[in-house]
Amino acid sequence: MARIAFHKKLQALHERLLAMAGLAEQTVHFALDAQSSGNLELCARVRSNESIINRSEREIDSMALDILAMEQPMAVDLRFILAAIKINSDLERIGDQSMAIAILAEELAQGAPRFFPVDIPRMAEFSIAMLRTALTALGNSDALLAADVLAMDDAVDEMNRQIKAVLLGCIAQEPESARSAVNLLLIARSLERIADHATNMAEDVIFWLSGADVRHGGALAARAV
Amino acid sequence: MARIAFHKKLQALHERLLAMAGLAEQTVHFALDAQSSGNLELCARVRSNESIINRSEREIDSMALDILAMEQPMAVDLRFILAAIKINSDLERIGDQSMAIAILAEELAQGAPRFFPVDIPRMAEFSIAMLRTALTALGNSDALLAADVLAMDDAVDEMNRQIKAVLLGCIAQEPESARSAVNLLLIARSLERIADHATNMAEDVIFWLSGADVRHGGALAARAV
Repeated sequence: MARIAFHKKLQALHERLLAMAGLAEQTVHFALDAQSSGNLELCARVRSNESIINRSEREIDSMALDILAMEQPMAVDLRFILAAIKINSDLERIGDQSMAIAILAEELAQGAPRFFPVDIPRMAEFSIAMLRTALTALGNSDALLAADVLAMDDAVDEMNRQIKAVLLGCIAQEPESARSAVNLLLIARSLERIADHATNMAEDVIFWLSGADVRHGGALAARAV
Repeated sequence: MARIAFHKKLQALHERLLAMAGLAEQTVHFALDAQSSGNLELCARVRSNESIINRSEREIDSMALDILAMEQPMAVDLRFILAAIKINSDLERIGDQSMAIAILAEELAQGAPRFFPVDIPRMAEFSIAMLRTALTALGNSDALLAADVLAMDDAVDEMNRQIKAVLLGCIAQEPESARSAVNLLLIARSLERIADHATNMAEDVIFWLSGADVRHGGALAARAV
């Protein structure tokens, strides 16, 4: 009986985490759509989602603490709870970055509309794909899929570098575009941070499922899992 | 006997975390000194410290996991371990931000030296003071001191906003300074993130010592702890 209650609690923690993950992904979308469409009503939705995410973070931590205190989980279950605590933090910070993007989108909308030859939507799609892949790996307990996320991180860093270089060129040619260009540059940086969080989450999924610590090029290469 | 071994493990975890915290603080200093002095040898020290920090993060997590698996800690001890896991992540990210500052310092050193009327050292001192206060609170188990950190976060956000506004003004007047101005602006943003991590750590210290969750304006106000 106790065993069944334990697995119900673990399952509930897993489901709560996936729900928060879905909300975090939606919040990133709202923020980016606010930026690309200039529809600032979406910023209000980012704000309200962020409050829910912050509340969820507390609730998930408290569920994890309760399981640790009451159930003395071992091995893979203990590693899952550790991973859940860390993924929870990453999701909360993805909420923070979405808020940062929404605020920059509001600033951008105040200025004159300008065209910059940078592909923010492509970088956004790539970062969101990393996030979604990490979340699918979490949902399906799939360490191999999580390893795919790690392989994607360098590409996002490179996009961020390119976007910065192009925007600095635009400012040099058209100094009056500086404010908008800098805000776009900061949005690219937030996307790069979101990709970093997706990478952290993928590492935590691998750690949970295999016990391998792949952070910072740890003992096992991700693909060897 | 088992009790003594348990407390030795907890003590070892605490000391390891404080050592990592000291290293993280030193790394922030190296990165900022590299920026203010242009001495790029310090960037190499940032890189080597960051590798040590990354290794420490894995070791501390593994110590925490070992205690959870072997000792079934309860109440305040369990909360300490949870706080240690979270503080560990924040310290690792402070290492990341220091690396980001060091890379920007290298880029700045490549351009012509320019003067900008922004007080990065003051913002840096303030952020480092928050970090040090959070670490002292951790070392001395002092929830009241940790609460002081939370009160400082808004000031750093405001400094970041002001620095951004001044630097945008500089770019408008002197477009050829754009690259350096943008790099300084990104350094200010990294400092603001370091202050955020100090705030998270202070919240975790309060949670450990009092069980109060003060994140995101939670049920108890920090000063009421």
